Amino acid sequence: MMEAQQSVPEESAHPVPAPPRRERVFLQKSSVCSRSYFMVVMVFFHVYIINVIALLLYVHYNNGQGELGGARGGENSGRAPFDPPPHQGPEPRSRSERLMYLPRIEGIRVGHVQKVSLVPDRLHEMRTLSLKPLLFEIPGFLSEEECRLVVQLAQLKGLTESQVMVPEGQEELAEQLDLSPEEIFNLLDLNQDGQLQLQEILTQSRVRDGIWLTPENLREIYTGLKADPDGDGLLSLAEFKQLSSNAFQRFLQQRGVQSSQLVRNSRHTWLYQGEGAHHVLRELQKRVTRLTRLPPQLVELSEPLQVVRYEQGGHYHAHHDSGPVYPETACTHTRLAANSSTPFETSCRYITVLFYLNSVEGGGETTFPVADNRTYEEMSLIQNDVDLLDTRKNCDKGNLRVTPTKGTAVLWYNYLSDGKGWVGELDEYSLHGGCVVTRGTKWIANNWINVDPDYERQVRYQQLVSQAHSTASERSKPNADPHGDAHQDL
Amino acid sequence: MMEAQQSVPEESAHPVPAPPRRERVFLQKSSVCSRSYFMVVMVFFHVYIINVIALLLYVHYNNGQGELGGARGGENSGRAPFDPPPHQGPEPRSRSERLMYLPRIEGIRVGHVQKVSLVPDRLHEMRTLSLKPLLFEIPGFLSEEECRLVVQLAQLKGLTESQVMVPEGQEELAEQLDLSPEEIFNLLDLNQDGQLQLQEILTQSRVRDGIWLTPENLREIYTGLKADPDGDGLLSLAEFKQLSSNAFQRFLQQRGVQSSQLVRNSRHTWLYQGEGAHHVLRELQKRVTRLTRLPPQLVELSEPLQVVRYEQGGHYHAHHDSGPVYPETACTHTRLAANSSTPFETSCRYITVLFYLNSVEGGGETTFPVADNRTYEEMSLIQNDVDLLDTRKNCDKGNLRVTPTKGTAVLWYNYLSDGKGWVGELDEYSLHGGCVVTRGTKWIANNWINVDPDYERQVRYQQLVSQAHSTASERSKPNADPHGDAHQDL
Repeated sequence: MMEAQQSVPEESAHPVPAPPRRERVFLQKSSVCSRSYFMVVMVFFHVYIINVIALLLYVHYNNGQGELGGARGGENSGRAPFDPPPHQGPEPRSRSERLMYLPRIEGIRVGHVQKVSLVPDRLHEMRTLSLKPLLFEIPGFLSEEECRLVVQLAQLKGLTESQVMVPEGQEELAEQLDLSPEEIFNLLDLNQDGQLQLQEILTQSRVRDGIWLTPENLREIYTGLKADPDGDGLLSLAEFKQLSSNAFQRFLQQRGVQSSQLVRNSRHTWLYQGEGAHHVLRELQKRVTRLTRLPPQLVELSEPLQVVRYEQGGHYHAHHDSGPVYPETACTHTRLAANSSTPFETSCRYITVLFYLNSVEGGGETTFPVADNRTYEEMSLIQNDVDLLDTRKNCDKGNLRVTPTKGTAVLWYNYLSDGKGWVGELDEYSLHGGCVVTRGTKWIANNWINVDPDYERQVRYQQLVSQAHSTASERSKPNADPHGDAHQDL
Repeated sequence: MMEAQQSVPEESAHPVPAPPRRERVFLQKSSVCSRSYFMVVMVFFHVYIINVIALLLYVHYNNGQGELGGARGGENSGRAPFDPPPHQGPEPRSRSERLMYLPRIEGIRVGHVQKVSLVPDRLHEMRTLSLKPLLFEIPGFLSEEECRLVVQLAQLKGLTESQVMVPEGQEELAEQLDLSPEEIFNLLDLNQDGQLQLQEILTQSRVRDGIWLTPENLREIYTGLKADPDGDGLLSLAEFKQLSSNAFQRFLQQRGVQSSQLVRNSRHTWLYQGEGAHHVLRELQKRVTRLTRLPPQLVELSEPLQVVRYEQGGHYHAHHDSGPVYPETACTHTRLAANSSTPFETSCRYITVLFYLNSVEGGGETTFPVADNRTYEEMSLIQNDVDLLDTRKNCDKGNLRVTPTKGTAVLWYNYLSDGKGWVGELDEYSLHGGCVVTRGTKWIANNWINVDPDYERQVRYQQLVSQAHSTASERSKPNADPHGDAHQDL
């Protein structure tokens, strides 16, 4: 505009009296002139507006920022959480199809340190602990004061046992599925060798019953039930058929189960972080959004903060925070948007952010027994002499252990990328557990970022929530948190 | 320029004689009207043009597409090779500072298969073979016909020994550096335990002399030279001082060295792929650009195609294709743009693309002995019983072997990312070698993509080349290939 005011065009610089040529312009075109100029102005004006809108739309969609993700998040606005990754495949999805992308933090190599901006006036250091899973440690993520407050809020709310002794509903489910003994045997026989190894029974019983049997326990049960007459530690189909479906459970109930024999031995509670929550919890959520660089709405629609207390002797045997992705898998958090019901439901926790709320006096490390292993073999995790899943016995034999330090956060991805900017397969290397606390108490908190591996379902869910939000915007508490108190504790 | 001629500035638009301000509006409405409308049109027009330019510039720089990389490459135009990665750190470099980015192909997990578009009418499959190094296999990258032609072109040009028996200039360099025996001892003592283990001598002699000593060879030399009187296989400083600087070399020369005792035992030649080269070689370069998704200029300014022939008994012991990054490291390819001379020069091969030009009858696999290992320890590669670097003896003991199949390409990154879209540290896991050919002949070709880990130097180099190119554009052959016949054969 400066230019327009200062530049001197040739023709209009002629002084008046005007020459004949000008006369014509003045006399004949006075009214026509104004109209035609008006027309020109309007045409330019419209073209201008249309072009600006078109370009804004282009910029908007070029950045992959659609209506789904909400506002650009946080300080890292140079490149936003919505930027799609470079296309891997030859068939890039059209922009209108995919408006939301999940950037992943680069690990580079074990030991790599990068600076991250999470709070004003300070940079945090983020160290890569492993690439499989993609795992980072951020010391000083929480201040001492914030740790203290989160623990107090949890105590105020009250904690409940993380696992009850005997799970219910298993028998009904088994009856519902109506499987023959042969079919069950086949499902249990992971390596399909026609026999059930100790590992196969253990893997199953731990997941199903939540009771942490050791190989010795199992041999003892075999003896008690006379289940393995030939004593080779293997169950043939014939031997398996002799057992009733809940023989193990009934045996264990008679014998009695201690909390140290459970998969997890802790108490926990959930703290809501949405609108109206304590400002420290709100701030924590914002910090997690900045750390993960994910669309803020994704973080806001995830599970509340889980605060966990392990007493002396507490543990959590090695497990995955989320389940594998099958075509029929449904996610707990997007249940609203599911078209059909399915018996396979998992919590779809894309990322785990674990906070240490105190420094533990003894034990209580977080172990990643197979981190950065070259291969992952489920069967070989449980050997007769060393059961790598057992965090009461074999934490020292795992590949990686993180010592709990007050205020430190660790972050890892439970799923791989699908190579197109979305969630792919479960990362089996994300197997982890809480080592037994040998002295003192251990306080941690977990933030799980829930993402549905089914992109369309996640989008549908977010649309449903934002609709519910806008229709319920007058009410005191918007229906943005569909989790309530029902969480799948994996 | 259009603007300047058409715009009407305010002041010069006053008609002479100038009436009182109000008067003008009422009495001279017709002319004022046309002028004021003209003004409005021009202002709108300028605002429009400026806005369009600003938005175009925004889009332009937001996509990170600068003048350095040339045109957007190939089919994968959905997201181009210039798209900067999401920022990791809190200090994003300004857009004007970094206009060139190096996208990396996502590996996801070992065994992951992605489709890539390299040629019209066909999709290739690219399988992830390892993540450390990031390594892919693309079957059918070259057609049978193309393989045959590349071999013929190489034969036409003629191949030379890849390694001469006794390297020259080592003694002069040693004299030039003028190091005391104590200083040399200290440099050789990798683990700084005050003694020289066999591994330490071997690592050094293989790199320096190009002669592949085995632990047994070395013990034999010790005996011959009476270098290790106490016979413990270790050299103390006192024992080391007794040896003259070229004692080993002279001993070996007297004893005679066979080609099978060299680090590499092959013949090779270089095929230029620039303007005027055979269309198959040109096409091959384009295909590599599409595969790597790197700025085309980077690929065009890299080394020519190296064609290698291994006869029966040929091998290439395990090595890195490029050197580590130190502050004082200079790259061979950007020597033009280096400000100072340095004795540390390496070829800075960011990516290796290796093509199998025939299927070998026996042996000749490409081995990656430590691929996806959890840790990398140079000292532990050479054990007394197993020397993982020895591709004549221990190819079967490495982690990964690729069988040569005619037309297949393998691609790997020799460097990690720096987390900011450029080259980072050397990826030590990229260690690889050619297993001994047990039957027949093995033909391969290598394309190395040279990138200087010093971003500024790479940019300066490309600017120099494009300047040289434009000033020499009248000449028959532009000076775009500074490599000539001088290549550092790592």
